[in-house]
Formats: sequence, structure tokens, C-alpha cells
Amino acid sequence: MNNSLASKWQSIEGGITAPNGFLAGGIRAGLKESNNRDLALLLAPSDATCTATFTQSSVRAPCIDLCQKRLSITQGGARAVLINSGQANACTGERGRIDNFLITDALASHLKLKEEEVLICSTGVIGVPIPVETVINNIGKLITNTSDEGGNNAANAIMTTDTFNKQSAYEITINNRKVRVGGMAKGSGMIHPNMATMLAFLSCDVGVSVEAWKAMIKRIVDRSFNAITVDGDTSTNDTLLAFTSGEPIEKEYLELLEEGLTLVSQDLARSIARDGEGATCLIETKVKGASNEKEAIHIARTICSSPLVKTAIHGKDPNWGRIIAALGRAGIKIESNLIALGIGPYKMMESGVPKEFNKKRASDYIASKMGKSYKKVGAVEINISIGKGEIYGVSWGCDLSRDYIKINADYTT
Amino acid sequence: MNNSLASKWQSIEGGITAPNGFLAGGIRAGLKESNNRDLALLLAPSDATCTATFTQSSVRAPCIDLCQKRLSITQGGARAVLINSGQANACTGERGRIDNFLITDALASHLKLKEEEVLICSTGVIGVPIPVETVINNIGKLITNTSDEGGNNAANAIMTTDTFNKQSAYEITINNRKVRVGGMAKGSGMIHPNMATMLAFLSCDVGVSVEAWKAMIKRIVDRSFNAITVDGDTSTNDTLLAFTSGEPIEKEYLELLEEGLTLVSQDLARSIARDGEGATCLIETKVKGASNEKEAIHIARTICSSPLVKTAIHGKDPNWGRIIAALGRAGIKIESNLIALGIGPYKMMESGVPKEFNKKRASDYIASKMGKSYKKVGAVEINISIGKGEIYGVSWGCDLSRDYIKINADYTT
Repeated sequence: MNNSLASKWQSIEGGITAPNGFLAGGIRAGLKESNNRDLALLLAPSDATCTATFTQSSVRAPCIDLCQKRLSITQGGARAVLINSGQANACTGERGRIDNFLITDALASHLKLKEEEVLICSTGVIGVPIPVETVINNIGKLITNTSDEGGNNAANAIMTTDTFNKQSAYEITINNRKVRVGGMAKGSGMIHPNMATMLAFLSCDVGVSVEAWKAMIKRIVDRSFNAITVDGDTSTNDTLLAFTSGEPIEKEYLELLEEGLTLVSQDLARSIARDGEGATCLIETKVKGASNEKEAIHIARTICSSPLVKTAIHGKDPNWGRIIAALGRAGIKIESNLIALGIGPYKMMESGVPKEFNKKRASDYIASKMGKSYKKVGAVEINISIGKGEIYGVSWGCDLSRDYIKINADYTT
Repeated sequence: MNNSLASKWQSIEGGITAPNGFLAGGIRAGLKESNNRDLALLLAPSDATCTATFTQSSVRAPCIDLCQKRLSITQGGARAVLINSGQANACTGERGRIDNFLITDALASHLKLKEEEVLICSTGVIGVPIPVETVINNIGKLITNTSDEGGNNAANAIMTTDTFNKQSAYEITINNRKVRVGGMAKGSGMIHPNMATMLAFLSCDVGVSVEAWKAMIKRIVDRSFNAITVDGDTSTNDTLLAFTSGEPIEKEYLELLEEGLTLVSQDLARSIARDGEGATCLIETKVKGASNEKEAIHIARTICSSPLVKTAIHGKDPNWGRIIAALGRAGIKIESNLIALGIGPYKMMESGVPKEFNKKRASDYIASKMGKSYKKVGAVEINISIGKGEIYGVSWGCDLSRDYIKINADYTT
């Protein structure tokens, strides 16, 4: 993976419904006090195959068990996903399980699908059940509002504490055939209190065999959603569903397809990292010279998740000592005298020994990356080289501000 | 381990010099801008044996290598430890190593000890070397000020960002023999920017064989210093040195001795956790029903280190959802329906399902634990039971406040 990928793929408008055959929608069902959109539907073409990644938490919402079981029964043959925001329906005991059956059963009837082909994802407050009747009464309206132009409404309807919706889509022409990949996600860089953290959905209008698709999505998730530092890794409801559908392409182009889906996923992952509570900038840590990618990403994540690095960046302080301390405790064997370190264009350490640098300019560099739109200003780049091997890895995070404390300490259950 | 231990051991005044035969001192050598005490000396009796625990960081200060090597050569025969605060002497390349030789050589000459019997510990800013001449010029004065009453000055001299010094000592009578254990430490609950994090020193006037002493200290460290959540585990200079000296006692009393040393170590560990930057209270998470102690402590630490739990407690918010989310992602297999959870006397979840509780009172309980002296007000207790086994474990942390951001974002390198 390198940064020149974007040159082949064209970024386009839209998200989950950009690829051919995918329909989505999002409506106001009254599940959230804010009266924002709160109920979304995603429909996949009849030939679609879905693979999933679920939370690693030992405390899982019942929707996770339902999705996992049904995807196993149908071998990825999911056709519809209902997503409700406002109530996570986690820690709700037997009732939570029953409510999921009732809702998916109603949706399956409306859509004339088998129950196993219908999935549900929930995000919201832990311990609070879904208002089942409200959801079921709104299914008709939801279906009516589902179309190939409904991606934006769906992306809005799955938001909870998000301050902006998260979508991405890319296009490429392969042998005169237009190919599209897209996606939507929700989640904040720091897990919100009782909120289920991260939901992500990917779509692609090229058919890929089940096994190849599973392997491809696993690699992509490791380089995107698993490379952002959410405050602790995983929540009760985290789910990623990735759909492939349509005519296959020649095997030789699969790598190119993977690149496109990686671009979408990294866009979404960066959006989640940047939307951390109270954050004022995106932080991108690049680790070079690792012996493998897992190691590189692990080091990069350790640095991105350090509260001391995060507060230093927030204070516009090019404090390399905090970065080196985080690097040291990543648990990876490193020869100190091979370490090089810098922030943006400024080099602060070479061969393990500090270098003189212009602190004022380095601070100005950090300040220049602060702003609402990270797509415009870019990320604060932290560059590390550990001189062990040839492998590169990257992770994304955000700074840590007083507003994070404000939002999280003043929020009351 | 249980909480009734304290009944046998009597807490006494003092710290590292409370046990018979140990001398210490701390002076102002001008290493710190603050002009506070900054140079300490610890002298152990000639029959003493020392065992050590060092940072797990892959970026280690040269004093770590020196201590490790010399303790290995002498089989624990260390007699003197010089501790300087202000400069960590980490990431200082070859010069750092040479400076350590020069300082310990000078101290050995003054004390007429072999070089291998002299150790050095440094704490302070990473990347900054020790002003060697200043230290060497002050060695005479330091020795003059070293005595069996110098424990307090030594505890003050090793402080960096600490807001209070950390000492503890206990006494017991075994077969008409007065036995004492003591210790001092430095460190904040959150690692300070470029500051080496944690130094701890233990003393004991009962002789224990090398192997038994090593094993005992390892167990004690796991239940104390390793059970507090410092923000990331380990820094470049973390060191614990534990000295045993004097007549041995009967083998049957070794367990009792271990209890005393655990009391000292847990006191010091709690002090470090409570002294977290900007903290307003101590948090104590107790996990019952685990299948082993490592698992119990790991879960407790995961909860204590969650920024969301820490901010909730700071906001006096009995937010059990954040606790359950942290519990879930600890990576330990748990049956959801066996989980019980509470804060202080308030039960919030039983058999995995939320319980009604008085939020106002639970919030008042948290508020009642806030105050400068945790020894007076106690800790905010988080109680978890996971119903897997019989084993208990505890971890300590502190709340996360705006002042943490203030201290760490506004500090400039």
C-alpha cells in the first residue's frame, strides 16, 4: 500500500449507494430525542455476498449474535440490513434477543425475504431496549424512502454523537467497465459514554468469490478501521458489513479492487478518528522500517492513542519526548540507536539522538493542521523510522482537548 | 490477599530508613530550576541483598543498563544508590553512559565501595544529560547529610511532577523481635510528558535468601505497582529496587513478611495513582469471581485506565455503561449473564441486567470521595463480579479532569 493509489481511483460523490444495485434510505422514526433521522435501511442486490467483522468485546449486543448466526447460515447471503440509532439494545437480557426477532421478522415479511436474509445493527445507549412498536410501524415508510439515491439519508440516520456523516466512494474504469466502491460509517474517535461505537458498511459492484472477499476485507479492515485509535478498541455493538455484488472481473484486477476498497475504508476510518469528541485535528502516525505491517500499525496506534501525545499536539507542542516514550512502550523490540523521528517536515531525532530543530516553526506546522475540515488542512503527521526492516504502516487519531473532558464528564446518565 | 492484613502490621511514621540499618539523605544540588531537593542517596547495610524490576520500554535510559549489569555481577550486592531528579539522561547516546560511570565512580571512591556496588537512578526530562560536575561536586555534602533520619529528605529529593512525597512504613513484632519494612517512591498516576515515570525503593530489616526475595518482590510488584494504571505502563527510566538485610526469620513467617511489604507497596502505588495530574480522587476497582489473579487485575486495570470511566467519575456520574464497555473490551472471556457491577454501596447490574438505583445518592457517594487527602476520604470503589471463579484482584487509578489537559497541553518543551 502506498499513497499513490488515489491516482488510479477517482473519488466521487456519494457513499454506500454509489455502486450499482445498492439501495438505501434513512427516516425519522422518533427513536432519538433530537428528532434527527434514526432508522436506516440498506438493501443489497440478490446476487450479493456479505462478510462481516464484529466487536471483540466479551459483552455483545444481541444484534451481533443474530448477524453472525444468520450470515453463517446463508453463507453471506444477506439482502437487507436495518439500522436503528438511539438505543444500543445491549445488556437488555432475553428481551433484547426477542425484540431483534420481532423487528427482523416484520422487515422480512414486508420485503418478502427469508428471515435469515435480514440483519439488524443497533447503536445508541447501552442498557436501553429498542422501541419495537415504533420501529415496526415505520418499516413501510422506511422501505418507501429507500432508493439508489438514499445513501446520504442512511448515513445521517446511523449517526449518534457524530458531528458529521461519514461517506466515501471511488470509481475506476477497468477494461471499459465502470467499477464503483462505496461506504458509510458512524463513530467518534473516542468511544462515547454508553454509545455503541462504530458501524461501517461497504459496497462494491464487482462480484468476488466468498473466500477471496473474506480475506480481502480482513486485510482492508486491518489497514483502516483497526488502524484508528478508538479509545479502547471495541464496544458492545461494533459491526462492519461488506457487500460484493455483480459480474466478476479478471483475477489480475482483484488487487486493484482491493486498493479502491482500502481508499474508501481509510477515508471512513480517518473521518471517525477526526470526529473524536472535542478534537481539533487529525493525527497521522507513519511508521517505516518495521519487520511486518502488524508491528508497524501497532507502534503507530500506540503513539496515536497516547493521551500525552494527544495533549501535546493539542497544545501545538512538538514534544518528541512523549512520542519516544509511547514508541518505547509499544512492546516491540527496537534498537534505540536506529530510531528516527519527526513531526511534519521537522526532524527531531536521528540515530536515536535528539536533533536541533526550530520549535516555533514545528509548533506553527501543528497549528496549521487545526480546523474543521481535515480534508482541507490535512493531518498532523508524525513520522517514525525504526530501522528494522522495509515495512510501512499508518494509524490515525486525534488530539485531546478540554472539550473531551467537558463532553464526557458533564454528560449524565 | 485481603484487607484485614493491616490489623497485624502497624503503620508507623517514616519510609525507607524506618527499617534498621538503612541510611538516606536528600539535598539541593541545583539540578532543578525550582531549587527543590534534587539529589538523593540511599545506603544499604553491608549484608543487604537487592532485587530489581526495570522498565519494559524498548527505549531505556543508560542507568537501567548499568543497574541491571551491576546487580547481575554482584548477585544483588548493591550498597549505595544515587538518585538525581531533573534530568532523565535518556536518549543521550554514548555521553549518557559515560556520565553514569563518572558519577558512580566518584561516589564509590567517597564511600570506599567497589564500583559494582554503586547504582544510579535518574528521573526528569528525556534527552537532557546530567550536569555531571554539579553532581560530583555535591557528593561530599550528600554523604554528610545521609543518616537514619534522612528518609524524608530523600523522598522529597526524588520528586519531579509529584505534588506530595510518597513514603510508607510498617512494624510488627515476631517472636519478640521488632521487624520493620519501609519504602519511598516517586511518580504521577499519569506519566508526565518527558519525565521518567516511576521510581520505587523498598527496605526490610529481615534477611531473606536471594531466590525467595526475588520471587516475593515479583508477586508484590504485581499486586501493587503493576496494578496501578499509569498512562501506558512504563517509561524510559522506571526502576524498583528492593533491599533485604539483617537476621533471617523462621520460614513460617515469610508469608507475614510478604504481607507487610505488600502493605508498603500498595500504599506507595495508591499514592502514585492518586497523584495523577489534575486528579481529584482515587479510584479503586475490585474484581471478584475471576479464575486467576492476573485476569482479575487485568480487568480492574482496564476499567481504571478507561478515559470514559475516568471522566464519568470526575463528573460524579455513576455511569455503569462505561464500566461495562471497559469490562467487555478487557479481552477476557466473560458470560454476560453472570456479571454484577456496582459503585460503592450501590448495585447497578446483577446477572448481566441493569438494576434500578438511586442516581442522586450514587453521585453524592462519588462526590464524597473527592478531596486532597485520599487517606481521609478513601477511594471511589468500583465493584465487579464476573462469576467465573473465586479469585479477587484490585487496581487503582484516578479521575481525568480538565486540569490534566491544561497541565499537559500547556506544558511546552
